Amino acid sequence: MVSPHARVWKLAITSNKKRSNQCGVRLTCYYFGVKSNLSAQNGTEPLIAACGDGDMQRFGMMIRLKPGSEVSYRQYHAAVWPEVLQKIRECNIENYSIFFKDNILFSYFEYRGSDVESDFKKMAADPKTQEWWSIMEPMQEPLPTRKKGEWWATMEEVFHLD
Amino acid sequence: MVSPHARVWKLAITSNKKRSNQCGVRLTCYYFGVKSNLSAQNGTEPLIAACGDGDMQRFGMMIRLKPGSEVSYRQYHAAVWPEVLQKIRECNIENYSIFFKDNILFSYFEYRGSDVESDFKKMAADPKTQEWWSIMEPMQEPLPTRKKGEWWATMEEVFHLD
Repeated sequence: MVSPHARVWKLAITSNKKRSNQCGVRLTCYYFGVKSNLSAQNGTEPLIAACGDGDMQRFGMMIRLKPGSEVSYRQYHAAVWPEVLQKIRECNIENYSIFFKDNILFSYFEYRGSDVESDFKKMAADPKTQEWWSIMEPMQEPLPTRKKGEWWATMEEVFHLD
Repeated sequence: MVSPHARVWKLAITSNKKRSNQCGVRLTCYYFGVKSNLSAQNGTEPLIAACGDGDMQRFGMMIRLKPGSEVSYRQYHAAVWPEVLQKIRECNIENYSIFFKDNILFSYFEYRGSDVESDFKKMAADPKTQEWWSIMEPMQEPLPTRKKGEWWATMEEVFHLD
């Protein structure tokens, strides 16, 4: 028989993995035998930035679009520069969507690489991507509650069903 | 040679498909030879509710969470009732995530069935799902700008990369 303490230990391991943004299949955690999402258990600052299965991490990000920028933002995103798309792919980002409603932009994407920090840095270092961002950023109004170093704010995943 | 008018016609067909929420691979549209997203072209009320490839439609939905409901909402979603999950699956919804930030809930899911209206009605008719919603809805504050008949508001997809 597995003792309850073994399961608490398993939860702690999962927590560490979440903090370093290294989510995987082991993210499914148990607390005294109850399968759950850690961020839903503690009711405090979420530890989780992204969640996924196997080698995939899901991201949900949010930012505001300044009133009056809707048409321009749509036009740019109907014809995103090929170099920008190519860099996104090279950085192991897939199934990437941006949704809009009431001046809120929401992005959803799946990261399938092995080093998300390194890939995000690679994207940020790309001159064409920087040029693209220099046009997008004046249209956007980042959330005051975003984490340090963020432009788009990472959201907390509170539910997932494959 | 294909005349420009043939491409306008192709756009019109796509528009009709979007209005009836029947998106598919044909949603990729051309306007005078330029591959684009229709809603990004017209700069008016978006025609598009969801977009996908082949038999898949992507949905982005938004609602507010009432202040003070965060912990309870997380707890419920850490252990969603099995009957509710089962009904979601039966209604051909996959890769379903809910994200949270600053009292905003965002949901992303992929519909892989052939009749989204019928499947959504099936879900709404399920007694256990109704019971679940009767607990969730008092925690939520729907957007005044949502479309008639909506609770969660459909967002406009402004960008997608597979």
